[in-house]
Amino acid sequence: MEKVVTRQLFRNLERFEHQSIELNGWVRNNRAQKSFGFLMINDGSFFETIQVVYEESLDNFKEIQKIRVGSAVTVYGVVIPTPNAKQPFEIKAHKLVLKGDCPEDYPIQPKRHTREFLREVAHLRPRTNLFSAVFRVRSLVAFAIHSYFQEKNFVYVHTPIITGSDAEGAGEMFRVTTLDLDNIPRNEEGVVDFKHDFFAKSTNLTVSGQLEGEAFALALRDVYTFGPTFRAENSNTQRHASEFWMIEPEMAFADLKDDMDMAEGMIKYIINYVLENAPEEMNFFDQYVSKGVLNRVQTVANSTFKRITYTEAIDILLTANKKFENKVEWGIDLSTEHERYLTDEVFKSPVFVTDYPKDIKAFYMRVNDDQKTVAAMDLLVPGVGELIGGSQREERLDILEKRMEEIGVPTEDLNWYLDLRRYGGVTHSGFGLGFERMVMYLTGVENIRDVIPFPRTPKNAEF
Amino acid sequence: MEKVVTRQLFRNLERFEHQSIELNGWVRNNRAQKSFGFLMINDGSFFETIQVVYEESLDNFKEIQKIRVGSAVTVYGVVIPTPNAKQPFEIKAHKLVLKGDCPEDYPIQPKRHTREFLREVAHLRPRTNLFSAVFRVRSLVAFAIHSYFQEKNFVYVHTPIITGSDAEGAGEMFRVTTLDLDNIPRNEEGVVDFKHDFFAKSTNLTVSGQLEGEAFALALRDVYTFGPTFRAENSNTQRHASEFWMIEPEMAFADLKDDMDMAEGMIKYIINYVLENAPEEMNFFDQYVSKGVLNRVQTVANSTFKRITYTEAIDILLTANKKFENKVEWGIDLSTEHERYLTDEVFKSPVFVTDYPKDIKAFYMRVNDDQKTVAAMDLLVPGVGELIGGSQREERLDILEKRMEEIGVPTEDLNWYLDLRRYGGVTHSGFGLGFERMVMYLTGVENIRDVIPFPRTPKNAEF
Repeated sequence: MEKVVTRQLFRNLERFEHQSIELNGWVRNNRAQKSFGFLMINDGSFFETIQVVYEESLDNFKEIQKIRVGSAVTVYGVVIPTPNAKQPFEIKAHKLVLKGDCPEDYPIQPKRHTREFLREVAHLRPRTNLFSAVFRVRSLVAFAIHSYFQEKNFVYVHTPIITGSDAEGAGEMFRVTTLDLDNIPRNEEGVVDFKHDFFAKSTNLTVSGQLEGEAFALALRDVYTFGPTFRAENSNTQRHASEFWMIEPEMAFADLKDDMDMAEGMIKYIINYVLENAPEEMNFFDQYVSKGVLNRVQTVANSTFKRITYTEAIDILLTANKKFENKVEWGIDLSTEHERYLTDEVFKSPVFVTDYPKDIKAFYMRVNDDQKTVAAMDLLVPGVGELIGGSQREERLDILEKRMEEIGVPTEDLNWYLDLRRYGGVTHSGFGLGFERMVMYLTGVENIRDVIPFPRTPKNAEF
Repeated sequence: MEKVVTRQLFRNLERFEHQSIELNGWVRNNRAQKSFGFLMINDGSFFETIQVVYEESLDNFKEIQKIRVGSAVTVYGVVIPTPNAKQPFEIKAHKLVLKGDCPEDYPIQPKRHTREFLREVAHLRPRTNLFSAVFRVRSLVAFAIHSYFQEKNFVYVHTPIITGSDAEGAGEMFRVTTLDLDNIPRNEEGVVDFKHDFFAKSTNLTVSGQLEGEAFALALRDVYTFGPTFRAENSNTQRHASEFWMIEPEMAFADLKDDMDMAEGMIKYIINYVLENAPEEMNFFDQYVSKGVLNRVQTVANSTFKRITYTEAIDILLTANKKFENKVEWGIDLSTEHERYLTDEVFKSPVFVTDYPKDIKAFYMRVNDDQKTVAAMDLLVPGVGELIGGSQREERLDILEKRMEEIGVPTEDLNWYLDLRRYGGVTHSGFGLGFERMVMYLTGVENIRDVIPFPRTPKNAEF
């Protein structure tokens, strides 16, 4: 008797029709009737559950009737096609064994649970339809990203998580230490003496791997990072977590246009990959999580992304027949309402906004010939806002040094970064994609806590 | 004129023979003669360099003669096959432009550098043959691992990096905090008050994602983690880093034999993938880094891994015609000399050692019927030692609780972990692969600092 998983049966039903099979899984529901009953079984290999019919003739019929939701079972039975039913087949059990019992207090009963409640049982929530779908899609998005870049011969680089630099400048950082908090070593002036810390210096968790990624791009040409990053910001929003994953490609001999082409190609590749590999999950999101998400992402995969400059964007906003809460003028950072107006009302498609004022952007972005703007790009997406931020990097040593001085970035710590301009420095560009943002965009799930297995947010590091 | 990269030329030379192309890259060497010269160019896309011939007839011949090692250039030229030379082709330049200069103090001159020196310029070392090969292979190993598990429908799970648990038990941990070290908050008893810390509790960097992985396996069946893990151990060895990456698959409805099958399949898949995708790099390692490594890994890919119990291993060691420094008796943890004897002298192949005494193994491993051993397995590999450690997990709630009590693992923190046994618990197994160990094994590089882009070790967190 062949041992099978649910995915095989759904994807290759013909091979198994009227065959005897063995299936392991967990009971999602048990509808016991007088002389027969139905077990809905999910084995984790596939989004859908399988209906198992059990009849009075089975030795342990009375025990089977009492099997509770959440229990693990092994089913031996025959695959029966059911062309007129909602499910394409069911399994008629000729033997059914309870493998792992589940008591009545099991929190994941077959009823509607709030997402807040399910966050409290994050170790059990992947057993629900919503979260099994979210986490399978999350996995597929990750693999799509790797595949996209590997097919293009990019080198995957693990940039460091623990960093001695606090100059990355992307946000507040977590300290990493082995100092005894009850006995902090101090020097003669009474200042904390990090010479006694594990790394003999003050260290933090990384907020970005970009700078290290640049070092590798200037050797291996096309590289990408994909790793966890951290923000110690005390903001409790639906879109922010303290620990999240980022993808940061970096390309030598590539300018801002190449950068946008690469980003656009990546988004489309991810969408197509997920549509192809998780149709059941995407249909579920479309029906129960975010109506229209399927059509929305399909449209994006088939569209050409718009590209406008920041200055053009400001002009559009200034002439808009709409009152914004935040004042529009050249030099402002676009706020969510501005971004939404551009994507949802004007363009109705993803749009790259380029060439932002240098004063609102990071020190490493390349100064344009107008001396006022930098070769930056943000990808704004309908319903989500900023999904990607990138730029052509300043490759001219003298201009970079001047910018760092202006902004107050200490050059001593970043001498190695300046070396990348001293020694064979060339045009190079890159961008960052917030991984969870992409998963939220594809699934329609609105709270970042619901797309991370065990989310970390202020005052919360359970499990 | 077509813009190409080195990889295209080497992999698809016929298409480009006698064609005009544009190539961007960095100068590895410049041998200027009186009326002509040779530039060795590497563009990062490929291990090999390309020889570019430039002649007196070029406008800027005199400047080209002076182009220094490390400079970035754009070459416009014709691809000329050279069937009798070491390199299959060269490029005859008809135009050559300096894009990024490089001064004479460039540290990566074309001569032999010690690996110790190159660690000090970790931002430049990927520009050398050794490190470009190592980091490309590292990337391929990572992708091979993802491909192996994704092809088998495993779900990639990002388990948390910051953890509130200190019960993972795999080693000393780094603290993560936003407390002001100059002003540590204390409660009335004078004890550090973590209520004021970012997560309102004491938090650390993870040493393993296994326990969280188990939660996902008991929902999604087959899962794997692939992320950074940390050890705050003050050990300065060639084989230990403070930050390294681990792969931890976890499978429901799988026993120890399934676990070993999966591990063996993975190792072979990785080897075959790298041999196929990085032949130039592997030849380089074989010639210059570790003689015989190519043959060694090929043999492993084609062999059936041996499987012996710990008790059998002890018997072999006891009857060995060899004097060990560490005493051999049932109950000891195998030391490196014992492992080496088994792999290098007895079996001459990878060997799984199973069913270790429970007293030397972790609390979560399943107790065997003999009550003395647990269903654990270590994969020992010739020349490297332990590459993988895994086990069938204890799924029986009462026995697990008893083990935790015996060993002194606090159950309050791990109540969620016990839930996985309470609610539909089943047979499940998993293992951990140290990613860097695998890269060291494949490349023959002996120091873990030389397979990590920016290694973190005691007193060292540069870049």
